Amino acid sequence: MTRAAVAGASGYAGGEILRLLLAHPTIEIGAVTAGSNAGERLGALHPHLVPLADRVLQDTTPEALAGHDVVFLALPHGHSAALAATVPDDVAVIDCGADFRLESGQAWTRFYDTEHAGTWPYGLPELPLTGGARQRDQLAGARRIAVPGCYPTGISLALAPGLAEGLIEPDDVVVVAASGTSGAGKGLKAHLLGSEVMGSMSPYGVGGGHRHSPEIEQNLSWAAGAPVTVSFTPTLAPMPRGILATSTARLRPGTDPAVVRGAWEQAYADEPFVHLLPEGVWPRTADVVGSNLVLLQLAVDAHAGRVVVVSAVDNLTKGTAGAAVQCANLALGLAETSGLPVAGVAP
Amino acid sequence: MTRAAVAGASGYAGGEILRLLLAHPTIEIGAVTAGSNAGERLGALHPHLVPLADRVLQDTTPEALAGHDVVFLALPHGHSAALAATVPDDVAVIDCGADFRLESGQAWTRFYDTEHAGTWPYGLPELPLTGGARQRDQLAGARRIAVPGCYPTGISLALAPGLAEGLIEPDDVVVVAASGTSGAGKGLKAHLLGSEVMGSMSPYGVGGGHRHSPEIEQNLSWAAGAPVTVSFTPTLAPMPRGILATSTARLRPGTDPAVVRGAWEQAYADEPFVHLLPEGVWPRTADVVGSNLVLLQLAVDAHAGRVVVVSAVDNLTKGTAGAAVQCANLALGLAETSGLPVAGVAP
Amino acid sequence: MTRAAVAGASGYAGGEILRLLLAHPTIEIGAVTAGSNAGERLGALHPHLVPLADRVLQDTTPEALAGHDVVFLALPHGHSAALAATVPDDVAVIDCGADFRLESGQAWTRFYDTEHAGTWPYGLPELPLTGGARQRDQLAGARRIAVPGCYPTGISLALAPGLAEGLIEPDDVVVVAASGTSGAGKGLKAHLLGSEVMGSMSPYGVGGGHRHSPEIEQNLSWAAGAPVTVSFTPTLAPMPRGILATSTARLRPGTDPAVVRGAWEQAYADEPFVHLLPEGVWPRTADVVGSNLVLLQLAVDAHAGRVVVVSAVDNLTKGTAGAAVQCANLALGLAETSGLPVAGVAP
Amino acid sequence: MTRAAVAGASGYAGGEILRLLLAHPTIEIGAVTAGSNAGERLGALHPHLVPLADRVLQDTTPEALAGHDVVFLALPHGHSAALAATVPDDVAVIDCGADFRLESGQAWTRFYDTEHAGTWPYGLPELPLTGGARQRDQLAGARRIAVPGCYPTGISLALAPGLAEGLIEPDDVVVVAASGTSGAGKGLKAHLLGSEVMGSMSPYGVGGGHRHSPEIEQNLSWAAGAPVTVSFTPTLAPMPRGILATSTARLRPGTDPAVVRGAWEQAYADEPFVHLLPEGVWPRTADVVGSNLVLLQLAVDAHAGRVVVVSAVDNLTKGTAGAAVQCANLALGLAETSGLPVAGVAP
Repeated sequence: MTRAAVAGASGYAGGEILRLLLAHPTIEIGAVTAGSNAGERLGALHPHLVPLADRVLQDTTPEALAGHDVVFLALPHGHSAALAATVPDDVAVIDCGADFRLESGQAWTRFYDTEHAGTWPYGLPELPLTGGARQRDQLAGARRIAVPGCYPTGISLALAPGLAEGLIEPDDVVVVAASGTSGAGKGLKAHLLGSEVMGSMSPYGVGGGHRHSPEIEQNLSWAAGAPVTVSFTPTLAPMPRGILATSTARLRPGTDPAVVRGAWEQAYADEPFVHLLPEGVWPRTADVVGSNLVLLQLAVDAHAGRVVVVSAVDNLTKGTAGAAVQCANLALGLAETSGLPVAGVAP
Repeated sequence: MTRAAVAGASGYAGGEILRLLLAHPTIEIGAVTAGSNAGERLGALHPHLVPLADRVLQDTTPEALAGHDVVFLALPHGHSAALAATVPDDVAVIDCGADFRLESGQAWTRFYDTEHAGTWPYGLPELPLTGGARQRDQLAGARRIAVPGCYPTGISLALAPGLAEGLIEPDDVVVVAASGTSGAGKGLKAHLLGSEVMGSMSPYGVGGGHRHSPEIEQNLSWAAGAPVTVSFTPTLAPMPRGILATSTARLRPGTDPAVVRGAWEQAYADEPFVHLLPEGVWPRTADVVGSNLVLLQLAVDAHAGRVVVVSAVDNLTKGTAGAAVQCANLALGLAETSGLPVAGVAP
Repeated sequence: MTRAAVAGASGYAGGEILRLLLAHPTIEIGAVTAGSNAGERLGALHPHLVPLADRVLQDTTPEALAGHDVVFLALPHGHSAALAATVPDDVAVIDCGADFRLESGQAWTRFYDTEHAGTWPYGLPELPLTGGARQRDQLAGARRIAVPGCYPTGISLALAPGLAEGLIEPDDVVVVAASGTSGAGKGLKAHLLGSEVMGSMSPYGVGGGHRHSPEIEQNLSWAAGAPVTVSFTPTLAPMPRGILATSTARLRPGTDPAVVRGAWEQAYADEPFVHLLPEGVWPRTADVVGSNLVLLQLAVDAHAGRVVVVSAVDNLTKGTAGAAVQCANLALGLAETSGLPVAGVAP
Repeated sequence: MTRAAVAGASGYAGGEILRLLLAHPTIEIGAVTAGSNAGERLGALHPHLVPLADRVLQDTTPEALAGHDVVFLALPHGHSAALAATVPDDVAVIDCGADFRLESGQAWTRFYDTEHAGTWPYGLPELPLTGGARQRDQLAGARRIAVPGCYPTGISLALAPGLAEGLIEPDDVVVVAASGTSGAGKGLKAHLLGSEVMGSMSPYGVGGGHRHSPEIEQNLSWAAGAPVTVSFTPTLAPMPRGILATSTARLRPGTDPAVVRGAWEQAYADEPFVHLLPEGVWPRTADVVGSNLVLLQLAVDAHAGRVVVVSAVDNLTKGTAGAAVQCANLALGLAETSGLPVAGVAP
C-alpha cells in the first residue's frame, strides 16, 4: 500500500480527496491535517465521510506530513510553497492550489498578492499540445504536480483540439461558464447563503476579472502554439457541484466543417475520462457529479462562423480532487484511472 | 374598468397573465379559455391563483373572446392568426406567441412549419433604435402587438445601446444565456422532470438552433441599423424562473471605454423597468422574480477587446406576461407601469 | 396617506415588509433603519427592492422612528421593548420579534436569556378561540401587536378548529414541519451555505428544543380552552421560502369523521387568506410564495385514529411580514387585506 | 466473477443498480433488459453511466435473463412473479418491487390491483427483531429476496430498537417523511416537472393512503412482537435523492430516558451501514447521497412523553439498489459490504 497525507482537509477540496481515497484500492489515508480546524473531529466537518468520522484533524506541520508516499495540498492560495519545501524530493506532492500552475510570474501577480512561487508540471494529462504531444508526458513519475483549476479543466479540454489542429482563430475565444456553489468554497459569505443562491443565477469576475483567466489562456496557448486571448465570464448556478462551460471560437476562414468534429474525436478517442458524446447529445452536469469525467459536445454554427463546444465537469472531482488523485496515480506509477469513478451519481 | 380575455390560460404564460391581472387596478378578468383543458377548474391547473380557483376554463372560441377590450393570446406557436382574425379591429390583441414577431417570412420558415402569419408592432417598448427612436413609439394605441420572446427581451436590451451608438461591431456578437425551466413550458418531457433538472445545467439548441436566434438578430439589427450576426447558446438552469444572459460584442477599434458606460446609462435613464445597476454590482435572477424588471450591468474587457453585458429578467413576467400587460397598458392608453411589479420576490 | 417606519430593515423580515409596503395603496414608506448596516444603501442589502435602492439606512433611534403612524419592528429577539417604549402610545407598533408573543414569562425564560418584556395582543386574526371568539377581535384599533412566529402561524391555524370544537385530544399532538432557509435568517452560518442546503433535508431543535414550541402550545391551548401538549420537529428544506407543516392529533373517541371536515370548513369559510382546499387537493408551498395565504387540507386516518392536517404558508409573508402588514391594517382601521397578495408566485 | 442480469434497467432503480455494479469488485454486468425501452442505447436513458453507454437494452425475456448467477428485478409492481418463476431455483433473484414484501395478502390487496404473489425473505439485514434475532439471518444463501421499499427502510430501522426492547408504545407511532423526487420514478407526470417541484414541498398519500404503510407496520410489528399502528405522511421535497424520516412514538410509562439511547446504540453498534450519530448531531440527507448508509439520531422529549428518531437514507441506494446489491452479496456468500459506498457524495 501507498500512504497519502492530506493537508488542508477541512475544505471541500480536501474532503473530496478523502472521499476518493476511501475507495482507492492501493492508496491508504495517513495524516489528515488542517489549519484553524485542527483538533476537530473530521465528522464535524465532513459528516458524509462516515468511516473517517472519528479521525481528529492534526495541525498542518512538516512533522505531520512526514513519512508518506504522497502529500496532497489543499491549502488557501499562496500557502503551498513553504510547506512543499519541507517535503523530501522523492515524495510526490500534488498541489490543488494555484501557486505553481502559471508559467508567467506576471500573470500570477495580476491576481494574487504573494510572490510567484514557481511552476510545476501542470496536471491535466489529457491536454492536447501543439505538435501532437500530450500534457500527460510530463506527469509520469513527477514528484511535484500542480493540479489545474476547475474552470480551466473544462474549458481547456473543450477548445484545445481545435487550436492544436489550427482550425480555430486564437484571438477571438469567448467562454461563459456556470459553476455550482462548492466552487466558491466553504467561506462564510452572504452571497453564498442558501437563501441567496437557490433559484438564482448571477455572474462574477466579469470582464477578465477572474483568477482563472490567465490559466485558461496559458493552456490554450500551449495547445495553439501561439498566444490565445479569451473573454471569460463565470456565473454562479443554483446547484452544489458541476461546471457547464460554453466555449466558442471563430473558425479559421475556409475550414471545412466536416473536419472539425474529427479533430475532437481523434483527440479524445483513447481517453478514459474525456468523452465526446454522440452527435446531437449534449452534456449535463448531473451526469458527471462525483466522477472524474469530462463530457463534451460541439456544433459548428456556419451562420455565425463559430464552433461552439460545451463541456461538463464536476468542479470538485475532475475539477480538483479527482485530478489530484489522477496525478498521484501517474506520479506513483499506478494505473491512471485507479480509484476514480467513471460514472456520475444521477439523478 | 377595462375587461380582458385570456386565451390559452392553462399554460405558464397564461397563468402569469392572470396573476398580474389579479393585481391590476383597472383591468378586470373576463373570459378565461383553454384548449384541451377546457372544462377544468382553474384551481386544478394554477393552484396559486387562489381567487380564481373556482373559475372553469371555457373553450377557446371567437364567441368566448367576444365583448372584451383586450384579448391576450397565450397559444402554442402557429395558432394566433386564425383566432386574431375573429377579433374586431378596435379590440386590442396582445399575442404572446411567436407568430407575428418576425418581419422576415424566411426566418419564420426556418424554425416553424406553418405559414408566416405576418408582422405586428413588436412589443418591446424600451428598445433603443438607430437614430434615437424608441420601439415604444409604435405601441401607443396599437390594436395588435406581438410580445417578444423571453430570451430576446433580455438580450436585445443588453446590446442595443452599444449598437445604436455604433460602439460595438455588429458581426461578432456572442450570447450565452441560462433560463429557468418554466421557459420550456408545462409539456411532459423526460428531461424536464424535477429529478433530471435539479442539480444540473445543460445546453440546448446550440449552434444557431434555437427559435429565438432570428428574433434576437432582428432586434439588434433594428438597433444597429445594419445586419447583426449572433452566436446564441441557451442553457437550462435548475430554477423555475429567470434568465441570466451574458452578451458580448467586440468594441469598435478606437472606442474610448469611458464612453461605453454612458451609452447604456443614457439609454435607460428614464425607463421604469430597465435599470443599469451601480458600477460593480451584477444582476441576479432572484432579484427580478415575479417582476417586470430588467437589471443590467456591463464591463469593458480591454484585454479581449470586448464589452460584456449581463442582464436578468423573469422569463414569465417581463419575458412574457408582464410585457403583455405593459403592451396592453400602452395599447389602451393606461399608465405603462399599471399593475406591474417593480420589485422582485427575494430571497 | 399613512406613514410607516421600518426598524431593522436589513434582514429578510424587514426586506419583506418593504416589498409589501411598496405595493400598499395607502401606507407610504418613511424611515428605514438598521443596526450595524446603518449607512448602507438599501440596494446593497435588498437588490430586489429596486425602487428603494438609493435609500440609505438610518440608525435605529427613537428620533428616526418619530413622526410615523405605524412603526414596524424587525429586530433581533430581545430588542423590541426598549425601542417600543420610546414610541408614543397613539402610534401603532407592530413587532415581528418574539418579545411580546408569550403570556408566560416562564416559557419565555426557557428559550431566551433576556427578561420577559410583557405580552401584547397576538397578531393572528384568523385564530379560532374556544367559545366561538376569534383572535381578530383583539386587534382592531390596537396600538401594540405581537406578530406570530412563522411556524406557529401555519400550525396553530391547522389544528385550532378541531381543538375549539373539541374533536381532537389536546395531549397527543405531533407536528413535523419543513421550512425554507430564509426562516433561519441572513446570519452567516456554515450549515446555511448554499452548498450545504441544496439537495439536503435536515432537522433541528428536535425533542422540544425549538423556540416556537411554547408559542404553538399557547395558541392551541387558547383554541382548546385547556392545556395542549405538542411534540414539534422542525426541518430545513432546500428552498428559500415556505413552510409545510404536517400536524396530527388523536381524534376523540366516538368522533364522527363526517363532522371533522365541517369544523375546518366553517372555521375559515369567510377568511380571505386561509383556505381549506377542495377535498383531495393538498397544499404546496410554491403556491403561497410571496402571498399572505394559508392553504390547508386534512384527512382522517381511521386506522391510526388520527386527523392529519397539512398547511402551507410563506414564512416571510403570512409567516412574518404579511402578518405584520395585516395587523397594521387592523390597527389603523384600513381594510384588513389592503396591500396583501392573495395569489402566490408560481411556478 | 459472478454474473448479474438487470431486468427493468431503464428506470431509476435499474440505473442505480448498474451504477453500483460498475464498481463492484466481483459481480460483472451481464444482460441488461427493459420493456418499452428495449432496443435503445443505455446512454440515451442513463447518460451518467458512461462505460455502459453503447450497451443496447434487450427485451425482458426468460431467455435474456438465463445464464446468470443473480437476477435483479426492477420492474413495475405486479410484474415480478411471472418472470421470477422462469429463473432456476439455484439462481438468486433479488426483487426491488413490492410484490413479495408483504406477508399479508389482505394488506397487498388494499393497495395493488393484482393478486398477491407470495412472500419472500425480506431484505433488510439490519432490522432488529423481537427476542434478539436479526433479519439478516434469513438472507444468507437465500435464492429469493424481496428488497424493502425506500420509506420502510429508513423508518423501520429508526423505530425497531425501541420496539424490540419494549421501550415505546406500539399503538401511537407517528411518522412524517420527506423524499426526493426520484422516489416517484421517471414517469411523466405534471406535478413532477422541475418547474413544479423546485422551491416547493407538498404531501401525498396522507391519512394512511401510501402503499408503504402496511410494509412499515409489518416491519415494526416484527420488531415489537405485537401489532404496531402507524400514522404515516410522506411529502415530496425539492431534491433529486434522499429521504429524511421523522419517526416518533410514545415512551412506555416509567421508561428511564437514560436507557433509551442505549437501546439504539446497542442495536447498531456492529452495523457497517447503520449509524447512530454522536449525541446532538442530526442526520442530513446530503451526507448519504449515493451511499448505502442509514444515519440516525434521537431525542427524548420528556414534556411530550415521546421519543423522536430522525433517519436519513438515499432512496435509490440503501432505499433500493444498494439494498439489492447488499442482499445479493448475502445470497451469494460475498462480503456483505462488497461494492457498496460507505461515504456520501457531499456537498
